[in-house]
Amino acid sequence: MAQENSPIQHELRFAERTQFQAGIAAFDFSGRALKHSDVIAFNYGLPDGDLFQLPELKAATALALSGDGARSLQYGGGSGTSRLPAYIAADRSRRWNTTVEPDEVLITSGSSQAIDLAGRLFLDPTDEVWFEAPSYFGAIHVLSLYGRQRRGFGMDAQGLVVDEVAEELERRAKTGAPLPKLFYVIPNYQNPTGLTMSLERRRTLAELAMRYGFYIIEDDAYGELGFDGVALPPIRSFAPEHTLYVTTFSKTVAPGLRVGAVIAPKTIIRGMQRVKSEGGTSPFVQETLANLLESIDFQAHLAHLRQTYRDRRDAMTETLAKVMPSGCEWTTPLGGFFVWVTLPEHTDIHRVWEHALEERVSFVGGPPFYVDEAGKNQMRLSFSYFKPDIIREGVLRLSRAVEKSMSPALTPTAPSAGR
Amino acid sequence: MAQENSPIQHELRFAERTQFQAGIAAFDFSGRALKHSDVIAFNYGLPDGDLFQLPELKAATALALSGDGARSLQYGGGSGTSRLPAYIAADRSRRWNTTVEPDEVLITSGSSQAIDLAGRLFLDPTDEVWFEAPSYFGAIHVLSLYGRQRRGFGMDAQGLVVDEVAEELERRAKTGAPLPKLFYVIPNYQNPTGLTMSLERRRTLAELAMRYGFYIIEDDAYGELGFDGVALPPIRSFAPEHTLYVTTFSKTVAPGLRVGAVIAPKTIIRGMQRVKSEGGTSPFVQETLANLLESIDFQAHLAHLRQTYRDRRDAMTETLAKVMPSGCEWTTPLGGFFVWVTLPEHTDIHRVWEHALEERVSFVGGPPFYVDEAGKNQMRLSFSYFKPDIIREGVLRLSRAVEKSMSPALTPTAPSAGR
Repeated sequence: MAQENSPIQHELRFAERTQFQAGIAAFDFSGRALKHSDVIAFNYGLPDGDLFQLPELKAATALALSGDGARSLQYGGGSGTSRLPAYIAADRSRRWNTTVEPDEVLITSGSSQAIDLAGRLFLDPTDEVWFEAPSYFGAIHVLSLYGRQRRGFGMDAQGLVVDEVAEELERRAKTGAPLPKLFYVIPNYQNPTGLTMSLERRRTLAELAMRYGFYIIEDDAYGELGFDGVALPPIRSFAPEHTLYVTTFSKTVAPGLRVGAVIAPKTIIRGMQRVKSEGGTSPFVQETLANLLESIDFQAHLAHLRQTYRDRRDAMTETLAKVMPSGCEWTTPLGGFFVWVTLPEHTDIHRVWEHALEERVSFVGGPPFYVDEAGKNQMRLSFSYFKPDIIREGVLRLSRAVEKSMSPALTPTAPSAGR
Repeated sequence: MAQENSPIQHELRFAERTQFQAGIAAFDFSGRALKHSDVIAFNYGLPDGDLFQLPELKAATALALSGDGARSLQYGGGSGTSRLPAYIAADRSRRWNTTVEPDEVLITSGSSQAIDLAGRLFLDPTDEVWFEAPSYFGAIHVLSLYGRQRRGFGMDAQGLVVDEVAEELERRAKTGAPLPKLFYVIPNYQNPTGLTMSLERRRTLAELAMRYGFYIIEDDAYGELGFDGVALPPIRSFAPEHTLYVTTFSKTVAPGLRVGAVIAPKTIIRGMQRVKSEGGTSPFVQETLANLLESIDFQAHLAHLRQTYRDRRDAMTETLAKVMPSGCEWTTPLGGFFVWVTLPEHTDIHRVWEHALEERVSFVGGPPFYVDEAGKNQMRLSFSYFKPDIIREGVLRLSRAVEKSMSPALTPTAPSAGR
């Protein structure tokens, strides 16, 4: 009976999908950097906590736990789960001068879940997803769980180079090669480049989606944070039947609530509801957020955020212009949280990072933003979290780290002063 | 150029996984029932909102929005995201007389997300998942998104008939047929049957998992609600390396918070973290829940819940014994929220449902709890939501509906009185 008692040979084997995720870890230097409280970490798109509306949130939670509000503690929740989609539908109807119905809106646990649900609903493993190159690593990571064929298309000052997309689609259609199923884009103040897609390119991309039958995930996480207060029409306005428009309250209210939303045709919303499997985004949090939005002047709040982040963008780009060595380039975003820096071609980002840690500053290196091997001389800097003085100091430190990396002979052996 | 302007033929096509979900809708009669406020709906496992701790929750949210607590509004959150896993680890270490480390705990958005992540981490589409028959339809639904081969194994008064499982495993191992990857069970006060798996069967199932290399999802949603206050050791205690133990605060604190957790080996927890894609369960809610648990006598609260739900179980089973027609059987659960009723074999559950709606009572029919065509003469009744008097009235109404269904000749044509 020894045979019966001995275990069958087996090992812990995870699903294939787990093999297809972006290698963020190797270029996310925050783990080491954030252990040092004196490091100025430009790594993440964190809003400044001083901009959170604490007294108003306190009142909103109290209301969510009183009287009828307490129904939000139940499965399915109270009125917040309908008031919040209604608020978003009304807000976008007004801003876009169109009609968005509340049942074209699905509340999600942050915009990441909206992207996850898009992948879950649309993608079989052999399906192809296209991206801007570079693009947000979180989206690349999530969508790679579902569709394992990925391709990136370049960008210029007008955003995604749509002509290259059109050529590739035409080539594939002619040869019978597979067409993409989803195209993930961030047209406003893109993560990581800060670039904005031009109106003409938005229209063209929408037309391509309708013509070739793919669906656009239009991630508009930063759309309400345009510094001149003017927003281009969303891609959705040109192809509402082919767009999954994604938004979030993480940048404008607070990330810790974890509330995003997707606006899409009803067939798609119903499909996403069917595959949404965590029992719904917290009804208590939805109730709280609905209470908050109904109690404050949200437009005035947004105006305040825009001015604050604009000042920080200025602090970052003006200092970059003053102190960065020649041969370095960077974007000047019209909104959002990020500046994208390109160093001379053969710069080794790991080397820059080591010097940056000595100087007590950090960033996210370029590679995780690409689906291929690109980005090794690039970095993303976030200007959202720190006050302007800290930003200036951080950029100064960064410039020293870059200089050292570009001049191997001058590498100091003594530790730098730090802060 | 006409050709270039005409759209390529395409249609909206969702991923294959969307085809493999349980058909809950056809047997979930709540949609129609809940439109009538006078219907006593035994459909869902809703806790009674009168048992929510509103003043304590209000204090916990206020604390989560004050001082250091407000860090919970940021990405990654404040101390709640570490205090909550630490609380769960300490609580289970004490109750199980073992050591659970905080990094063996992952907080999830309800227990449904824990189940989803297990499927996401382990299952390729051709992988097989086994269930008790019947089992919780939510778990069947979620796991079917990932693994499309499903099989159920029968239950008796001791819970899952483990011998049948052992035979099937042995047969497959001998013939080289595929072994299951995951086995989903609810050993305590099962949903929907209310049955409890015996100690001996827990041990045997654990041994089978180790021998044949599959992983057990041990869903313990109701484990803290045993009416005699005694809990059997979890399956995990016999095979910690092969168990993903799932718990939730939905039954004991409030579903609307959407907080669950999974306890598993660190390799599996890290894998689940990698494929968890919504930016983390709301740190604000985690902070709130950690504050609550540290401020109340949770054991006293659980004792109160147990007594309350025990009284309701009694009201339901005692009334069933008094009023149900002969030929009907039901379980008498030792905990949890559910009684499982089996009607005479050829009863048509849709017919019972129509009569039940006339009588102003409702339930969930049996079929969605099975992976095959079974359950057509069964129903799940929840006793958790209503006070005992309402439960007695509801069961009385139900008995009339069942009687009518069993006696076609006596079907009344006049509408029933309702309430």
